[in-house]
Amino acid sequence: MPPVSLDNINPKVLKCEYAVRGEIVTLAQALQEELKSKPGSHPFDEILYCNIGNPQSLGQQPITFFREVLALCDHPSILDRSETQGLFSADAIERAWQILDQIPGRATGAYSHSQGIKGLRDTIAAGIEARDGFPADPNDIFLTDGASPAVHMMMQLLIRSEKDGILCPIPQYPLYSASIALHGGALVPYYLDEATGWGLEVSELKKQLADAKSKGITPRALVVINPGNPTGQVLAEDNQRGIVEFCKQEGLVLLADEVYQENVYVPEKKFDSFKKIARSMGYGENDISLVSFQSVSKGYYGECGKRGGYMEVTGFVPEIREQIYKVASVNLCSNISGQILASLVMSPPKVGDESYESYSAEKDGILSSLARRAKTLEDAFNNLEGVTCNKAEGAMYLFPCICLPEKAIKAAEAAKTAPDNFYCRRLLNATGIVFVPGSGFGQLPGTWHFRCTILPQEDKIPAVVSRLTEFHKSFMDEFRD
Amino acid sequence: MPPVSLDNINPKVLKCEYAVRGEIVTLAQALQEELKSKPGSHPFDEILYCNIGNPQSLGQQPITFFREVLALCDHPSILDRSETQGLFSADAIERAWQILDQIPGRATGAYSHSQGIKGLRDTIAAGIEARDGFPADPNDIFLTDGASPAVHMMMQLLIRSEKDGILCPIPQYPLYSASIALHGGALVPYYLDEATGWGLEVSELKKQLADAKSKGITPRALVVINPGNPTGQVLAEDNQRGIVEFCKQEGLVLLADEVYQENVYVPEKKFDSFKKIARSMGYGENDISLVSFQSVSKGYYGECGKRGGYMEVTGFVPEIREQIYKVASVNLCSNISGQILASLVMSPPKVGDESYESYSAEKDGILSSLARRAKTLEDAFNNLEGVTCNKAEGAMYLFPCICLPEKAIKAAEAAKTAPDNFYCRRLLNATGIVFVPGSGFGQLPGTWHFRCTILPQEDKIPAVVSRLTEFHKSFMDEFRD
Repeated sequence: MPPVSLDNINPKVLKCEYAVRGEIVTLAQALQEELKSKPGSHPFDEILYCNIGNPQSLGQQPITFFREVLALCDHPSILDRSETQGLFSADAIERAWQILDQIPGRATGAYSHSQGIKGLRDTIAAGIEARDGFPADPNDIFLTDGASPAVHMMMQLLIRSEKDGILCPIPQYPLYSASIALHGGALVPYYLDEATGWGLEVSELKKQLADAKSKGITPRALVVINPGNPTGQVLAEDNQRGIVEFCKQEGLVLLADEVYQENVYVPEKKFDSFKKIARSMGYGENDISLVSFQSVSKGYYGECGKRGGYMEVTGFVPEIREQIYKVASVNLCSNISGQILASLVMSPPKVGDESYESYSAEKDGILSSLARRAKTLEDAFNNLEGVTCNKAEGAMYLFPCICLPEKAIKAAEAAKTAPDNFYCRRLLNATGIVFVPGSGFGQLPGTWHFRCTILPQEDKIPAVVSRLTEFHKSFMDEFRD
Repeated sequence: MPPVSLDNINPKVLKCEYAVRGEIVTLAQALQEELKSKPGSHPFDEILYCNIGNPQSLGQQPITFFREVLALCDHPSILDRSETQGLFSADAIERAWQILDQIPGRATGAYSHSQGIKGLRDTIAAGIEARDGFPADPNDIFLTDGASPAVHMMMQLLIRSEKDGILCPIPQYPLYSASIALHGGALVPYYLDEATGWGLEVSELKKQLADAKSKGITPRALVVINPGNPTGQVLAEDNQRGIVEFCKQEGLVLLADEVYQENVYVPEKKFDSFKKIARSMGYGENDISLVSFQSVSKGYYGECGKRGGYMEVTGFVPEIREQIYKVASVNLCSNISGQILASLVMSPPKVGDESYESYSAEKDGILSSLARRAKTLEDAFNNLEGVTCNKAEGAMYLFPCICLPEKAIKAAEAAKTAPDNFYCRRLLNATGIVFVPGSGFGQLPGTWHFRCTILPQEDKIPAVVSRLTEFHKSFMDEFRD
């Protein structure tokens, strides 16, 4: 028998859970295989994946300018060829040259500095400055393979034992619970208030912090996701100020997940980075420790497969910065295409550039379509019996609340599963629609939710709505008390 | 004051060391800046980086076919354009189509399956089969951002506490000591025998295993690096069989670092994978747990910046495979360009393909040049007073032993540093040549070494040799007893 078994592996690995790719998704993949090998074997002919923020898997097209630059940097020897002029836009060619000149020896196949190529970090810092109106330092930027490794790096740094606590919103994106579990810390939950559009109350933070301390937990950091995942809210400036003040007073590192900064769909809200808020309150390097996470996977670009991203690390003493650098250096560097793309999303084409108009059209097309899809799905959920859904202000998700009949809860119990999982499994088996049960994100005990992305292409949305509506009606008819 | 300090971070992070990007390299970067801002400020006009296996940073050119395919997959909309025929080889265009057809929706910007795109894993498995003559299963392949994250994943799985031991060669590549430290395990050293060309004796393994057990350590796995890093040896088949037998008998997971499988420079040696050896001994899935690591960063391709690689995981029960999958899924997937490149290096152009001749010429040119450089440097080291250097059979490194005079050791002591570090620092300050001190890799107590890559381009090698020889002579003159 092989020597490794569930009894003798790291128990932290066992404890870790990641619902976004969990049981329901595995079932969906099995159904998809069955549809392929036995067409007509299910009451639907395709799986509608609404489980994960993966826009291009559902047909969203990449931004042309970004891909032109990446292709040219991958194969620079065509830059001098005349055919290239006909195939690529002039500003993509120019940008590729600029980027290559920032790389020692123009070697896009070499390991870079462990924080990422210096010239690209300069570009990103300039982009942050332009966004916030406050200075950004390229030496504060750590380029990473998507945002996930950056989050792991900070958890690894801060968590010493199960007595170290990380404050996390509930509901939360399960990367946080998974990472805290893998590094052996304690997740200190704070509940977002569904009744006020997933509002974040400082009184709730204080209460949970006191509660954690009373249990002997040392709180180290507070995670905030803005725009919210899975909840889709955009925090009000007042709210953000309250959070900054709270972290400053309590000596907590503020871990700001800002990967949805380009995804805001309502005119009355806008994205402000936590760094901008902190600086506008007069708080500088010595006042607050703040890490902002950004990714190329979200926004209007949705380049999940490129695994690009960065964290901006401010308010740490130099010795700690060195420790973060050391941990980054063990993995040598993040992938160069992802680094290049991270610089591009922070400095897209400008007015006057050859690509500007087509770039703007692509960007606006994607964002306005996302806004329409969010609204249609939000309305559809609110039309279902026993379902209420907050406004989708931003990000890529809706997180409706479903009031399940007692009989459905009993049936779930009999099937030895959580009621929200029971609902999602039934939905999948009946319609091919994949939602993630709320229990994967956390929810107020006794309430049930699911997360649905707004990413199916617009021509698929009517099918999602009609199949969901029909299923929900028959589900409620079956289980209504 | 910021709340995070060296006193309150994870002590495992503090303990972790990574010499390949350590003190000497930081000094080299500072000198490079000085050379730029104040030309003539040092007795050399360029830094000669021999510290890290990063071929393209030193001028090695990428393999054209690989880069053509990557560029086309990055920007597939040019595949149909007539200009593309003039710019790219026909087989690169064909391969790009094949790969795109293996990706659902041809979406190179989507997250893939957490183990990597299935079609690419099929290609890799076929490449392993062709290499070994034994079956390989695509479901055993986990594509990763270079080999490092794969190594971390296995350490995370196996290490529960500081009582879990991982057998590692000494000298070793510091990724292993760093990863074991970060995950809080115990490194159980076994010494390679310099006198027999860095041979690996099973008697030494048994001795160290018994010693570790007597200290209450539970050995979980054995790391073997073949071809060796930093030692450059290629294991004999007999040796490999002994290791397989030992791991089987002792219930150890065999972690085989095989990233230098294409880097063998002497006709009397060849690379055999540990899986081939185990299978040829009649050992299958139920007999031995074996993980093989491969990377696109090494070989003749040297595509470090692309962060591609995979591990082939065999001999684990399904429940453990599920745990590995779960951990992989928390980071969603590795970057798609790296995945594509990993499939390309395992299935390069074949006889009859349009690119085959130019591909072969590029590959052979790189490998034969590496062999010449290895021999020249090996001879140069052996010509230095008090220095002996084993044959460079493979990988990208030499690890000569230097017998330092007592006076130099005293001077190092006075300078509060290790003698090998003292030598490397003096060498760097005098010549601009960057070696890594042996203490970063581990060495038999009382012996001193340094690691030197064979990667400077051939036109730079004479300068490395003459500057090194001159420095060494004056160093010895200064410190000779």
